[in-house]
Amino acid sequence: MQLHGFFNSSTSYRVRIALALKGLAYDALPVNIRTGEHRDADYVARVNPSALVPALADGEFRLGQSLAILDYLDQIHPEPRLIPLEPRRRARVLELATLIACDIHPVNNLRVLRYLDNELNVTPQQKAAWYRHWIAEGMAGVERLLVRADTGPWCFGDTPTLADVCLVPQMANALRMDCDLSAYPRSLAVYEHARRAPAFEAAQPQRQPDYVA
Amino acid sequence: MQLHGFFNSSTSYRVRIALALKGLAYDALPVNIRTGEHRDADYVARVNPSALVPALADGEFRLGQSLAILDYLDQIHPEPRLIPLEPRRRARVLELATLIACDIHPVNNLRVLRYLDNELNVTPQQKAAWYRHWIAEGMAGVERLLVRADTGPWCFGDTPTLADVCLVPQMANALRMDCDLSAYPRSLAVYEHARRAPAFEAAQPQRQPDYVA
Repeated sequence: MQLHGFFNSSTSYRVRIALALKGLAYDALPVNIRTGEHRDADYVARVNPSALVPALADGEFRLGQSLAILDYLDQIHPEPRLIPLEPRRRARVLELATLIACDIHPVNNLRVLRYLDNELNVTPQQKAAWYRHWIAEGMAGVERLLVRADTGPWCFGDTPTLADVCLVPQMANALRMDCDLSAYPRSLAVYEHARRAPAFEAAQPQRQPDYVA
Repeated sequence: MQLHGFFNSSTSYRVRIALALKGLAYDALPVNIRTGEHRDADYVARVNPSALVPALADGEFRLGQSLAILDYLDQIHPEPRLIPLEPRRRARVLELATLIACDIHPVNNLRVLRYLDNELNVTPQQKAAWYRHWIAEGMAGVERLLVRADTGPWCFGDTPTLADVCLVPQMANALRMDCDLSAYPRSLAVYEHARRAPAFEAAQPQRQPDYVA
């Protein structure tokens, strides 16, 4: 398999974690979203019509959207399973994962922050406040979901799931952007546990071939 | 079952379509997100810790996040199935659904538009341009995915899937906000087909008990 992604894209980071957890070898094909490579006509035509990262190539089958890729990997390589089969346990995992994937990450990603800069000419303070606002909104929900679940050391019990795969890149990003996460102790405990697991370490941005400081 | 939602929330709209397609009766429990009812302490504590709509109650089991709810409904009431089981067909459906759910809808929802108004003091023209920009970005991708699939009359063949469940509310919203969608003929053809289906009609905002013009 091949993964088209960017070291600092947290949706790419999710897929890297899943590939590592499942022990799947892949070629990393960097797409520099800072310079707009994801919009190149060839990439859009040949790899990902939605002009985003990540995209997975499994032979001739090419697939975009991190959640679709993660579900696909769980279908074709179910060990270890990241999305449980039992309906209510499954629902809890998807609830937390999509709270991050739909309600936190999209509002703070690179293209939105650039629009604030370039089209709305916000100040650096306004941009930082925007970022912190959506982190605080979303992490408060994440924390309450984890408190309700009342498990550990992972989001939902003894093994990593899609929830952890989404949580770790999001919290790593928030910490990199100097957000104060001390109001979310349960989330921080999961993060501290998860980020030390070998699959999560191997997926870190600074371990990727296209990393630049 | 009970659905906590808001007539004009397109994530609630998605769940209403799925419930109607599956022929599941439910009580509609309005939560007015314009006046902030989704933030009421009782709602957050008792119904949805993430303080958002929609939320489904299936007996004592309460679940937030529309994509998690839609997956749950497909697990416990699989007929008609909205998320196919065959891995590559399933992946295509999830790819399009999550392009809408992660990369279009979240950036243009009510809370984000309000932040632009109240915190960044944008002009009405800037707010309209913001809305149209993310619709154009996302719908271009949706259109290319539908052209690649080359099927019909639904997004992926002869029956509705999660992709149509996400596409119709998003396009209805864009049309309500006066976006020009003529550059997306394939998407418009699916929309025109889907919106006339009885389950999609029954789920429209103007048919809901809490509707106000």
